[in-house]
Amino acid sequence: MHKVSGFFLCFICLPLLSFFSSNPGYSQEIAPDKVKTIFGIVPKVAENPSNPVTPEKVNLGRYLFFEPRLSKSSKISCNSCHSLANSGVDGLPTSIGHKWQIGPRNAPTVLNAALEFTQFWDGRAKDVEEQAMGPMLNPKEMASTKELVVQRLKSIPQYVEMFKKAFPDETDPVSFENAAKAIAAFERTLITPSRFDRYMDGDLSALSPEEKEGLKTFIQTGCISCHNGTGIGGGMFQKFGLVHKVSWLQDLGRFEVTNNPADKYVFKVPSLRNVAKTAPYFNNGHTWSLEEAVKTMGYVQLGKNLTDEEVKKIVSFLGSLSAEPPLQVTLPNLPPSTPQTPKPMP
Amino acid sequence: MHKVSGFFLCFICLPLLSFFSSNPGYSQEIAPDKVKTIFGIVPKVAENPSNPVTPEKVNLGRYLFFEPRLSKSSKISCNSCHSLANSGVDGLPTSIGHKWQIGPRNAPTVLNAALEFTQFWDGRAKDVEEQAMGPMLNPKEMASTKELVVQRLKSIPQYVEMFKKAFPDETDPVSFENAAKAIAAFERTLITPSRFDRYMDGDLSALSPEEKEGLKTFIQTGCISCHNGTGIGGGMFQKFGLVHKVSWLQDLGRFEVTNNPADKYVFKVPSLRNVAKTAPYFNNGHTWSLEEAVKTMGYVQLGKNLTDEEVKKIVSFLGSLSAEPPLQVTLPNLPPSTPQTPKPMP
Repeated sequence: MHKVSGFFLCFICLPLLSFFSSNPGYSQEIAPDKVKTIFGIVPKVAENPSNPVTPEKVNLGRYLFFEPRLSKSSKISCNSCHSLANSGVDGLPTSIGHKWQIGPRNAPTVLNAALEFTQFWDGRAKDVEEQAMGPMLNPKEMASTKELVVQRLKSIPQYVEMFKKAFPDETDPVSFENAAKAIAAFERTLITPSRFDRYMDGDLSALSPEEKEGLKTFIQTGCISCHNGTGIGGGMFQKFGLVHKVSWLQDLGRFEVTNNPADKYVFKVPSLRNVAKTAPYFNNGHTWSLEEAVKTMGYVQLGKNLTDEEVKKIVSFLGSLSAEPPLQVTLPNLPPSTPQTPKPMP
Repeated sequence: MHKVSGFFLCFICLPLLSFFSSNPGYSQEIAPDKVKTIFGIVPKVAENPSNPVTPEKVNLGRYLFFEPRLSKSSKISCNSCHSLANSGVDGLPTSIGHKWQIGPRNAPTVLNAALEFTQFWDGRAKDVEEQAMGPMLNPKEMASTKELVVQRLKSIPQYVEMFKKAFPDETDPVSFENAAKAIAAFERTLITPSRFDRYMDGDLSALSPEEKEGLKTFIQTGCISCHNGTGIGGGMFQKFGLVHKVSWLQDLGRFEVTNNPADKYVFKVPSLRNVAKTAPYFNNGHTWSLEEAVKTMGYVQLGKNLTDEEVKKIVSFLGSLSAEPPLQVTLPNLPPSTPQTPKPMP
């Protein structure tokens, strides 16, 4: 397992933290190459050797991402809860699915999700390929079945052609697993560089003075214990409420997957890329304000009472993690159903 | 009122019909300029002098079209039922709205809607500007209120800026009516030329021989009595079941708006542009097959039992009305909410 304890992390980050707090040459400006060692610049595409990202697969995946016929009702697509017009989220505390059922957890953004070390809040899927299958089959989400998905797709000649092109070496390319693979390949292209990457790449003007102050505070406060790597998070599990209990937290998190008592209240550390645009926050969308979310994290994870000034600076830095240039997604033109296509079941 | 009786129409079209059936020079090839007199080539933009289509307004309208915060739940946008990935429809018999309520009528495509002489199946809105207000306020659809829409929009600085630019001469530009005007302006750009327009413009190779046969059949059968003009429909009201009663029809149509007994079962004649991609058909999505829909129309409207061959030809022609080049819509990047933004109410 990839699980890393809080202690272990602090052990890793300690040298970095002490570097930044003790280095006499370190004042306002943080050397981008040092920052890059903590985080790293996003790749153009989050590659996966076992699911190569080809143009044909990405194109098919884009169609399927917007395809409501993958759901039982033919109403809900991936994009319904991971809206690419809305930074990859639905902006709701927890999502609305089949027959308006309200789900238990906040829909994480699909942007940069492929960079994360595991998928879902509880890490029950190892990558986006495995993740993409989940919502289609979840009775509270798209409420479909593998058979229904395949039947619908096979009934539409344009999709059959697209699957053949995306999986040219397979004898039966239209499969549930390949649908998920194509969606995942598309998601692997949904990587959003930001001004922060330009900064790490050496462009000192990419961050404002306040954002640089915020970055320093983010590092020195210890946020980087968990929020590190190219995703600025998304690289480990962590207990929510490591130092102080989270009063409203009911969700047992990863424990529900492993049944290991040590995993109670443990969640994947979310990526902070685009965080300024993906409210509300936390596993159940409990908190709408990014300021409040930062303050909460400082207290329950690090045992620190951050001042309003520190919070303001950190939030300012987090704003530099929003996609820039803005993500440009062109809608597909979904092919029509045929008489063989199973009808919507709302 | 724009209502035109079936008799009056036949009177108008008779000379054209007799021209096509008696003209000795008329065999397979129909002279495009004659065809153009019945239909007409779509404009690039469906202008409205009282709501000028400016780039700023169209851009704002594109944002608002995809904006779920216009709905009470913050889940449903215009695009939810008029999906621009799906030829402007949801592909359901009747739409699913707030709290999964199932509406009474089939969602018509938003593509080319601005070309039609009136809006909604029953013509209760005179243009897309008026139409755009309806779903936001309908308790079964987006279930919002004017106040909530304005409160949400005014709470988001980026929208305030965009409204100022779209309505530069107004002192209080962020209004419910202006939101509808902006959405309408965007819709006025959702015009989809097709191969049929190229044909009418003189490119004889734009239609296949079977499609030309279908066009001839479409004209000679009398479909053009109602389906004429640039929308190939969308220009008049008509009783559904003019000659023969429609066995399954319950909806009283325009009667519900006017209370005039003559308006029972009267509906707006829908545009046939993109019809091959906007199943299911009729006011309640009763019929999934375009062949069946054509056969039904021939019988109940014209009293004709079309042969399978005739139906096939007409359907072939109708396929030439699909958008070409395909519509290319780039998603907006919706601005984040602020602490002042009223929360979702699912």
